[in-house]
Amino acid sequence: MAVVVSMDRKGKSASIQPLLDLTASDMARVNELILSKAGSDVRLIPEIARYLVTAGGKRLRPMLTLAAARMFGYAGDAHIKLSTAVEFMHTATLLHDDVVDESGMRRGSRTARVIWGNQASVLVGDFLLGQAFRMMVDTGSLAALDVLSTASCVIAEGEVMQLAAAKNLETTEDEYLAVIKAKTAALFSAAAEMGPIIAGMGAAERAALRSYGINLGYAFQLVDDALDYGGNAKDLGKNVGDDFREGKVTLPVLLAYRRGTDVDRAFWRGAIEKGESSDEALGHAIGLMRRHGALTDTIRRAVSYGEVARDALAPLPDTAHKGALLDVIDYCVARVS
Amino acid sequence: MAVVVSMDRKGKSASIQPLLDLTASDMARVNELILSKAGSDVRLIPEIARYLVTAGGKRLRPMLTLAAARMFGYAGDAHIKLSTAVEFMHTATLLHDDVVDESGMRRGSRTARVIWGNQASVLVGDFLLGQAFRMMVDTGSLAALDVLSTASCVIAEGEVMQLAAAKNLETTEDEYLAVIKAKTAALFSAAAEMGPIIAGMGAAERAALRSYGINLGYAFQLVDDALDYGGNAKDLGKNVGDDFREGKVTLPVLLAYRRGTDVDRAFWRGAIEKGESSDEALGHAIGLMRRHGALTDTIRRAVSYGEVARDALAPLPDTAHKGALLDVIDYCVARVS
Repeated sequence: MAVVVSMDRKGKSASIQPLLDLTASDMARVNELILSKAGSDVRLIPEIARYLVTAGGKRLRPMLTLAAARMFGYAGDAHIKLSTAVEFMHTATLLHDDVVDESGMRRGSRTARVIWGNQASVLVGDFLLGQAFRMMVDTGSLAALDVLSTASCVIAEGEVMQLAAAKNLETTEDEYLAVIKAKTAALFSAAAEMGPIIAGMGAAERAALRSYGINLGYAFQLVDDALDYGGNAKDLGKNVGDDFREGKVTLPVLLAYRRGTDVDRAFWRGAIEKGESSDEALGHAIGLMRRHGALTDTIRRAVSYGEVARDALAPLPDTAHKGALLDVIDYCVARVS
Repeated sequence: MAVVVSMDRKGKSASIQPLLDLTASDMARVNELILSKAGSDVRLIPEIARYLVTAGGKRLRPMLTLAAARMFGYAGDAHIKLSTAVEFMHTATLLHDDVVDESGMRRGSRTARVIWGNQASVLVGDFLLGQAFRMMVDTGSLAALDVLSTASCVIAEGEVMQLAAAKNLETTEDEYLAVIKAKTAALFSAAAEMGPIIAGMGAAERAALRSYGINLGYAFQLVDDALDYGGNAKDLGKNVGDDFREGKVTLPVLLAYRRGTDVDRAFWRGAIEKGESSDEALGHAIGLMRRHGALTDTIRRAVSYGEVARDALAPLPDTAHKGALLDVIDYCVARVS
């Protein structure tokens, strides 16, 4: 399979372990700061925050900030605050996203809105966003504030864009890429650029990490889209079909729709627009995607973005941190093949 | 009536006109900036933003920022951006508030959530908040960012506090004051403090405007609470009863509940906790408030905060702008008596 060949060619470890190891002590401080900044006399706030923190994800974004700061030899403390701010921005987005998408589950746990309601999810999201900005202000870096406040706007714009394009099967691939650039890649990019910013590096280093982040973000989201239909795996994982049941128009759907017959397209309209999304329909959808190479080609796109991300870091000195950041690219893509 | 006497004693104009006149040319620039910063290629964003802008309120908060900057002779441009940022923060809060309260009407117009849905309201609120921070960053003032990002957290905290205390008739007056301090007074305070901050004034001037803002905010909110039950007027305005029908626990309700008989308290529980809020019940509620002096005393509290706001500015030189800010206090309180 093309994808696997491409990865073998790189001969990389496809592991997130080096990043985890290199950022372990910094991440311990980030996790402490997360709990402390999610504190409030208003009981509901730490309650929800703690739930989100323990439900936890990989914390990929804050690790990007930490590694990108250390790779330039940064020895101060501000990267801890910026890293935590990035994670809070991400968590706030998830809280609001779940309200907007009316999601019931995330990462195998019930969403906050199911437990505490939409109201608390909106407000606690606002609180976390406010805390994120306070931490950025604390660092005194106007450049960091500039990049992260811009990302905050772009993310919201991307969400509105996605809302406006919801269930529209005529969305072009370019339009879809614009959505994931804003929704996902913008924060990856900002997270990575925090490193050279706080380390006081120049425009070239900032551009390199920014480009690494944005392209990694594209790759990450496209792989996620493919994973939701089982990726290329023969046996499907547990969370397969969430996007399908929510009627989300992602790249695998768009490709299968565009490449399909009139009969196929009628099926997609029923599934996405009218919510005809039984398990049987999901099986049929995956079959159509395989027939039209929709999953393989979504992954191809991801691999291609990953290569751009790799080249973005090429001019920088080879350090352990740079190596770990490169491994993340392969790790993201390897999840799916 | 005590309230009217108190105002006559001051012999003030009780008009917002001086503030409107003094900030007119600056406000024209703020209104231009509002429209430009609410722009986006994502059509839904300027659409909703324009609706909110034309529905408009008094724009009291941005005028506070402008007047407080000019009263210290500020001659730059940054107050325009900070003033717009304050208004965007306020608008974002209203958008999210309406979602949280499930409100259908605001200022006599349908709320954005009724027209465009909760989803768009959450996301466009996020966008406006992001734009607010970008404008603050543009001014390069870390002090302004510090105050406004803290206000942003405090406001969200206040909203969560209010949510947690919703429909709880055992809320104490202190607890209620803590809610409105966070929900309303914090932004008034931050808006006013932007003036001395951007004009480069010292701690004393900042403290004076901060104190003016917070106490004006208390007065403003308490008057608003009283107005929702017709204030002291014999003939009731059009929007009377909104808080009652939404089961909001405000100070007039708390006072009438605490001072009432067991029979009265049973009535309040039915009205607030069980939503028994017919027009007849509203009439009865207003009758109970009058009997127990709940409206008069809510206004008394407001007048008292207004006097603290007035004294906060006392040490500062008498200028036209200071006079206009003092008139606003009387204007806020005069609305109700």
